[in-house]
Amino acid sequence: MTFVEACRAFIAETGSLPCTVTIFLEGEEESGSPSLLPFLDAQREALTADVALICDTNMWDRDTPAISTGLRGLVGEEITIRAATMDLHSGYFGGAAANPIRVLARILADLHDADGRVTLPGFYDGVPELPEDVRKVWSELPFSEEEFLGSVGLRVPAGERGRSVLEQTWSRPTAEFNGIEGGYTGKGFKTVIAAQAHAKVSFRLVFDQDPAKIRASFRSFVEERLPADCEAEFHEHGGSPAIQLPFDSPVLQTARQALSDEWPNPAVMIGMGGSIPVVGEFKRRLDMPSLLIGFGLGDDRIHSPNEKYEMTSFAKGQRSWARVLAALGEKGAS
Amino acid sequence: MTFVEACRAFIAETGSLPCTVTIFLEGEEESGSPSLLPFLDAQREALTADVALICDTNMWDRDTPAISTGLRGLVGEEITIRAATMDLHSGYFGGAAANPIRVLARILADLHDADGRVTLPGFYDGVPELPEDVRKVWSELPFSEEEFLGSVGLRVPAGERGRSVLEQTWSRPTAEFNGIEGGYTGKGFKTVIAAQAHAKVSFRLVFDQDPAKIRASFRSFVEERLPADCEAEFHEHGGSPAIQLPFDSPVLQTARQALSDEWPNPAVMIGMGGSIPVVGEFKRRLDMPSLLIGFGLGDDRIHSPNEKYEMTSFAKGQRSWARVLAALGEKGAS
Repeated sequence: MTFVEACRAFIAETGSLPCTVTIFLEGEEESGSPSLLPFLDAQREALTADVALICDTNMWDRDTPAISTGLRGLVGEEITIRAATMDLHSGYFGGAAANPIRVLARILADLHDADGRVTLPGFYDGVPELPEDVRKVWSELPFSEEEFLGSVGLRVPAGERGRSVLEQTWSRPTAEFNGIEGGYTGKGFKTVIAAQAHAKVSFRLVFDQDPAKIRASFRSFVEERLPADCEAEFHEHGGSPAIQLPFDSPVLQTARQALSDEWPNPAVMIGMGGSIPVVGEFKRRLDMPSLLIGFGLGDDRIHSPNEKYEMTSFAKGQRSWARVLAALGEKGAS
Repeated sequence: MTFVEACRAFIAETGSLPCTVTIFLEGEEESGSPSLLPFLDAQREALTADVALICDTNMWDRDTPAISTGLRGLVGEEITIRAATMDLHSGYFGGAAANPIRVLARILADLHDADGRVTLPGFYDGVPELPEDVRKVWSELPFSEEEFLGSVGLRVPAGERGRSVLEQTWSRPTAEFNGIEGGYTGKGFKTVIAAQAHAKVSFRLVFDQDPAKIRASFRSFVEERLPADCEAEFHEHGGSPAIQLPFDSPVLQTARQALSDEWPNPAVMIGMGGSIPVVGEFKRRLDMPSLLIGFGLGDDRIHSPNEKYEMTSFAKGQRSWARVLAALGEKGAS
């Protein structure tokens, strides 16, 4: 919206836009975007541009605009461990029968070592140490680990030992367990040995980690740990590589200056722990880099009750996009 | 029912019973038996007898009656692991925030070693090797591990390495995970880090294991493994010690002979992996030993759809109880 309003205002004021703009709106996000990739392929010619401006990210704080230069990728997997053909009574069979919850707990526990590193073979292939220029920029961000964790009742960074919270969430890959279920979970107690147990596991990827390799490595890891009489079934839930934009790209520097002209504080370059898979598809299918600028705030409660968008973000966001378009036009984006 | 019918037939035939019989019927099993223990204490005088005959167990097979000489005890625990004050987005917080499912999986995985033994400190206190006379009796039972496991789609005993299935289910203690739940468990995928995760854990006890000590040891085990920012909440679900009846008791030998007179094969003495807590309460509160004889069969589908009770068990079960009563009367039980 801020971007469309900026274009409209530009035309109203000057009669035209400072560069050619193609607006691409996608409305299927909440249902898995089934048409997105076929559409990109079919409309390759019409869509390809010097740069994709993506308006789905946050500011650093109320006074400080931000350009996101990295996004983590994602591999989602659902696994089901099966043993007996039916639920069993733990009195009759307990001690002799394989218990899928126990097998699953063992496998999940094995996925991290004592230092919080993921133990999948090859997991850290394509994960460099943070480039010095990025580390320097991040270290200068006014960020309080205490406040960030404290806002959700935590105190201690729980990830890889010896890494800052910003590293842990922006530039390090993770294995997370997003859901687990098995056996009797209602009120009271049943001494059952379940026939199966499930978990939803996701991996956040960074830099050049390959989603297909990570998925294959995870499946082998599980298969290798299955005891006798147990089998695993896998269900894929999406996969996308991480995005890392070079700090020294001219487009990025141009946009940064334009943003800094609008807001009280200069624009900062930040990472982002979440994933926007289309950024990778723009690169892969259209060979088009992206520029990630947005005006959301950390307390907007996205996707939650009482979601908001600040009026300041709406007004100054429009002015910011006008500035970015003008600056890109001047630099010769066509 | 078989027992009540046997008493009725005895009186119809001879005018009286061969010994004094008090019938104790309890109808609250499915709702946790809240009145049972207060009633035992209040009616101690009226209820105490030389022996309690308990009719809640199985035959060995269709032709072979059985006396159960051991019952495993049980400790039930529900644990909840909590970390953040709310569910978190794994993009923003993943890598920095403690994940209760991961903490829970680690704790559960730690409960067994590579040989399938339970790692709780003090867990095997009061667990002797099987007495030679019991081992001999069990080794002579016509039991097929292949058939027992094969009936539920399994092939390999999953318990303590180097123990037979009968040992694993009758004379060895276990830790079982009866239920687990946390995070998003519906269709599809949510990249959430849950605020909490739950598990229902039970321990089957044998010989002289102390339920209170096992529960305390488990709680310490969990507490010691809690990382920063995590807490555990425990909820107790029952506890009862194991029961072991001496093989050489005269009452048992008398009953064994009476049963052997009725059925095609002589009676065998078996263990039982399940728990009947009242047996322990009879001993503790009334100082009354129990004799466990029943005529159920392995394929009766107890508590399941299409539950049955064989007509042969009903008819010959009545005759068996008549024989047992007569024999006990002769031996001077009063």
